[in-house]
Amino acid sequence: MNTQQPLRVGIVGLGRMGQRHAQALAFRTPHCQLVSACSPVDSERAYATEYLQVARVYDEFSAFLADPQLDAVVLATPTNLHADQTIAALQAGKHVFVEKPLGLTLVDCERVLSVADKHPDLVAMVGFVRRFDPSYANAHTAIAAGEIGRPFMVRSQTCDQNDPDGFFVRFSPSSGGIFMDCSVHDIDLARWLLGRPKALRAFATGTIALHPALAEFGDVDNGMAIVEFEGGAKAVLYASRTMAHGHETSTEIIGTAGKLMVGEHAAADRIIRSDSHGVRHTVVKDFYERFEAAFAAEMTAFVEACRGTKPLSLTLSDALEATRIALAITRSLKSGMPEAV
Amino acid sequence: MNTQQPLRVGIVGLGRMGQRHAQALAFRTPHCQLVSACSPVDSERAYATEYLQVARVYDEFSAFLADPQLDAVVLATPTNLHADQTIAALQAGKHVFVEKPLGLTLVDCERVLSVADKHPDLVAMVGFVRRFDPSYANAHTAIAAGEIGRPFMVRSQTCDQNDPDGFFVRFSPSSGGIFMDCSVHDIDLARWLLGRPKALRAFATGTIALHPALAEFGDVDNGMAIVEFEGGAKAVLYASRTMAHGHETSTEIIGTAGKLMVGEHAAADRIIRSDSHGVRHTVVKDFYERFEAAFAAEMTAFVEACRGTKPLSLTLSDALEATRIALAITRSLKSGMPEAV
Amino acid sequence: MNTQQPLRVGIVGLGRMGQRHAQALAFRTPHCQLVSACSPVDSERAYATEYLQVARVYDEFSAFLADPQLDAVVLATPTNLHADQTIAALQAGKHVFVEKPLGLTLVDCERVLSVADKHPDLVAMVGFVRRFDPSYANAHTAIAAGEIGRPFMVRSQTCDQNDPDGFFVRFSPSSGGIFMDCSVHDIDLARWLLGRPKALRAFATGTIALHPALAEFGDVDNGMAIVEFEGGAKAVLYASRTMAHGHETSTEIIGTAGKLMVGEHAAADRIIRSDSHGVRHTVVKDFYERFEAAFAAEMTAFVEACRGTKPLSLTLSDALEATRIALAITRSLKSGMPEAV
Amino acid sequence: MNTQQPLRVGIVGLGRMGQRHAQALAFRTPHCQLVSACSPVDSERAYATEYLQVARVYDEFSAFLADPQLDAVVLATPTNLHADQTIAALQAGKHVFVEKPLGLTLVDCERVLSVADKHPDLVAMVGFVRRFDPSYANAHTAIAAGEIGRPFMVRSQTCDQNDPDGFFVRFSPSSGGIFMDCSVHDIDLARWLLGRPKALRAFATGTIALHPALAEFGDVDNGMAIVEFEGGAKAVLYASRTMAHGHETSTEIIGTAGKLMVGEHAAADRIIRSDSHGVRHTVVKDFYERFEAAFAAEMTAFVEACRGTKPLSLTLSDALEATRIALAITRSLKSGMPEAV
Repeated sequence: MNTQQPLRVGIVGLGRMGQRHAQALAFRTPHCQLVSACSPVDSERAYATEYLQVARVYDEFSAFLADPQLDAVVLATPTNLHADQTIAALQAGKHVFVEKPLGLTLVDCERVLSVADKHPDLVAMVGFVRRFDPSYANAHTAIAAGEIGRPFMVRSQTCDQNDPDGFFVRFSPSSGGIFMDCSVHDIDLARWLLGRPKALRAFATGTIALHPALAEFGDVDNGMAIVEFEGGAKAVLYASRTMAHGHETSTEIIGTAGKLMVGEHAAADRIIRSDSHGVRHTVVKDFYERFEAAFAAEMTAFVEACRGTKPLSLTLSDALEATRIALAITRSLKSGMPEAV
Repeated sequence: MNTQQPLRVGIVGLGRMGQRHAQALAFRTPHCQLVSACSPVDSERAYATEYLQVARVYDEFSAFLADPQLDAVVLATPTNLHADQTIAALQAGKHVFVEKPLGLTLVDCERVLSVADKHPDLVAMVGFVRRFDPSYANAHTAIAAGEIGRPFMVRSQTCDQNDPDGFFVRFSPSSGGIFMDCSVHDIDLARWLLGRPKALRAFATGTIALHPALAEFGDVDNGMAIVEFEGGAKAVLYASRTMAHGHETSTEIIGTAGKLMVGEHAAADRIIRSDSHGVRHTVVKDFYERFEAAFAAEMTAFVEACRGTKPLSLTLSDALEATRIALAITRSLKSGMPEAV
Repeated sequence: MNTQQPLRVGIVGLGRMGQRHAQALAFRTPHCQLVSACSPVDSERAYATEYLQVARVYDEFSAFLADPQLDAVVLATPTNLHADQTIAALQAGKHVFVEKPLGLTLVDCERVLSVADKHPDLVAMVGFVRRFDPSYANAHTAIAAGEIGRPFMVRSQTCDQNDPDGFFVRFSPSSGGIFMDCSVHDIDLARWLLGRPKALRAFATGTIALHPALAEFGDVDNGMAIVEFEGGAKAVLYASRTMAHGHETSTEIIGTAGKLMVGEHAAADRIIRSDSHGVRHTVVKDFYERFEAAFAAEMTAFVEACRGTKPLSLTLSDALEATRIALAITRSLKSGMPEAV
Repeated sequence: MNTQQPLRVGIVGLGRMGQRHAQALAFRTPHCQLVSACSPVDSERAYATEYLQVARVYDEFSAFLADPQLDAVVLATPTNLHADQTIAALQAGKHVFVEKPLGLTLVDCERVLSVADKHPDLVAMVGFVRRFDPSYANAHTAIAAGEIGRPFMVRSQTCDQNDPDGFFVRFSPSSGGIFMDCSVHDIDLARWLLGRPKALRAFATGTIALHPALAEFGDVDNGMAIVEFEGGAKAVLYASRTMAHGHETSTEIIGTAGKLMVGEHAAADRIIRSDSHGVRHTVVKDFYERFEAAFAAEMTAFVEACRGTKPLSLTLSDALEATRIALAITRSLKSGMPEAV
């Protein structure tokens, strides 16, 4: 495309995640214009008009897509719409960014890949935001440069601060469970940082520490899993909904010549307090606070990929593989036995 | 002003700092448009046209200022121009952001204050960027909330990685020396975090560790100073040009019920490496890398103040006092005796 | 016994571990006298006479045990002798401290327990040294005081610095493999910190990163395991022989109201270095360096228990259970399936 | 002396410090016997007999000294007795360890040095315990090995947890004030780590944060000082009685190729807690807890020096110089002007 012109982007869905992406597109992304928005919710459309000052606002997806002055679409919609909306956008000739997960089933993911294959000129990107976090990006660069020798193990966790209200309990039936909802990020990181080895088997277990209502859905609030890859590499995963101190996403990559630990302790800022509670720092409250810069960088990367100024290493196939592994882990949690990926 | 319209900003000077401010204004600052640029340097004007896509580009400051479609000016010019350009911009009816220091003499600072007093409707802001760093801002909030009791001491340092090329040596005659160039930030922080007490006396000493050519200018590459404030509070300052590990700006505020340490160790990211060198992290290389987010927040604060959506606590009088204290410290370095502020 | 008199202790085996215990007994343990030593090795007996200034030195275990002026025995001998020597010492009426593991088979452990049951007046203690480390002891106290709510998960690792010479490879056939040799400590910690829940199942996997010769013995140089306990608690274990940076034993205990992390990063001292390698600290080289104070405290605890001045919470049954779990993990490594404990 | 025999040591004074030294001598120091004790206090003598099981106990110093079966004396008595008792012990032919400070006046210190000069065969050692802390010892070794290039600056602090009872206030008249009581350790460290440069001038200031009763004695509860050495090196000192979080003794040594920070944050153990207060560790409560291992190592070093098995780098002249600098700092606190050392 013409790199002289800014990319014209439209946002679909202006809930919590959608607003974040929209702000990044409107105010923080070079060479991009947020030109349209689509939402069935009145207040979300009002937000687009008033705060974001978006010119064209729609309540229907098909009308939104029909706009010829639109180059690219950002989908921040419910998971069950991801696959179909992505397909429709590609077929309308738009670049697509879609929030993770691409789908809750392999069939859904494969349908999208099949359509995307027919539009090699269009960018289709899934929101594995951690790859755009400066620390994870630096870790990937260091590993690629051989700084830790041959990486053979990843330990990675996504641990949320306990939500006494238990939103995620009600959300459990549609989220796919703790591993699909949380660990899918860790799975993508493990594959990326280990060089995309083929996953062979997964074993999982879990416990309910604070939210007994999860039992009804076969879900847990603390889950742990081991993934075995071809060639001997392993991933050890932990996901929790019950941390007392805040949100702590961290990942350790162990190699033959050293190891990297990313994100541990999840400091909210650069302040150390020394007082009657000891020497301490505060912790990020949630993944928004932890990955704020990464969300902005992710939109920048999407825009650069659409404009052709910088290639994207993240593929739809990565999203498919992450789903495939998360499904095997979820089966193992239920069967109690290792499951083939 | 009309908060419905974006603020129209022009940048003056597109050197290292100017480019950074311009990028923030063009791509990262909500409700703002970078509409013009001014520089006597051809390549800087080309950068404005091509990369920033600025509409109106000038080689002369007076022509730039005459633009009626301009609301606000950002000055990233040599220190010796700061006072006069600020005055001219105010007299042209523009809001002004000017890089620190406001001036190297009290007379210069006072001339600006006097003109600003006559334009109470215009924002005039000096670039004490650290106040806009999230960690320093959180520290200020915590202190104001009484979290450390009564603060009575600040220890603050600005320590640059050694530049073997010694740029700052050649720059010494015009920078005002190490305390005026580096510690002026720490002085502003100390006053801000201690509640703006009146400074009474200053004592300074220093040493030349690696750059003997500084002796010619009466300057040092490592300087330390103590400032005594009315009411008993103290500031202990350290500035260095010779750190081996990177740039480390840090500040400790000690109160009767606890202390805060901001910025120590200056980690470049959230990675901990464990290898044959021990357990370690890398360090930010320079103040740009350390304060990147703060520079963006500073521009946002300037725009918000100009648009009237959020007041600014930073005043020209703060800049005058910081210069006054830095001058007393500099005198003490030369006299070897405590100097009245 | 008479608490007015010091305890009279004899040491058996003066290899690496034996010398360490002997030094603690001779020079660092209150109310204790190292009165005799036993070793088949000439140089070890010479060390006892000359450096430790021990009065009575033997080359035969039975003669050593026959000494009526001996109250207690410390066994630092090869693992395959542990059970029989412990039994003989108890039958000779001596208190016994024996290095871990108590035995490599359940039968051996049970034989010792059976004899010990007949001598309730004698102390019989296995060297789970970590329980005497000040940090682990403080963690246990904090958990018992409810500081982290209900603990439900332990993550624990024993990671040795890579030994290019591969001593542990040759040692593999007699050590019982990586989990029996290293993780048995983590298993004991997990049980102790979780309140001794009954273990139900274990799953393990592993990889060979640097020492292919281990394959012959069915052993690995990096092993990971999950243990499931009655009531839902879990332990996630990691053992490695290939760390680049040093020895890092660490344990995380996660509860419903907080978590504790013990020993992470394994700093060798209280020095932070800031130089061209970043900001860093050195790491303990091996478990001796990490647990030096704990080894001394362990001997003090043994002497206090023998003298009746302070009870011991560590029991032979703890050692039996640790072996039982380590065996199940080892079976799982070979079968690839979860194994009942 | 005969290194085949243990050194026979007597302790004088069994208050808080004396008990600590006595326990180290009785239970933790190789090749040493605690054979006698001297105290005017009944309960202290009972402690010696009963807990320490010391054979000979005295209430009079001269009778204690007259014992021919005594090789060495450890003085843990009030500061005003240090000089005279050290002299008497040397004249009785005993090695002497005396707690810091050697004296509160230069005259006292010089009297001791003069007597010690006449007994070159006897060890006379002042208790600058920090030199025996493993971390400070490692720092000294690293600096001597050139790891930070040429050291040119030391920043060092002794900061006590606030004692609401204000023991140190009543103690102020006899302690010599905050710099003589606390900073004398930092001064000794600075000289040791910088290679014993000659001190030229000192400047000090201070404030009273919490203990107004100190004003009567011309003392402060927070003091800061700068010492200038020949050759350009500087020391920046801080002493506080009012920390909220615990005792934090820390020292930074800055060189041309790197810096070392010793003891910062003063973690009480190796536990990191993550809970509703953030991520945190507890802090040592007082200098005893911080330097427990150093106190034991100090006694070991004293015994080794007396037995001739390992030389001592710490000299009485070091103690004299530390007192000289502390006196100049104390004068400056009162005069408000730099004082010649």
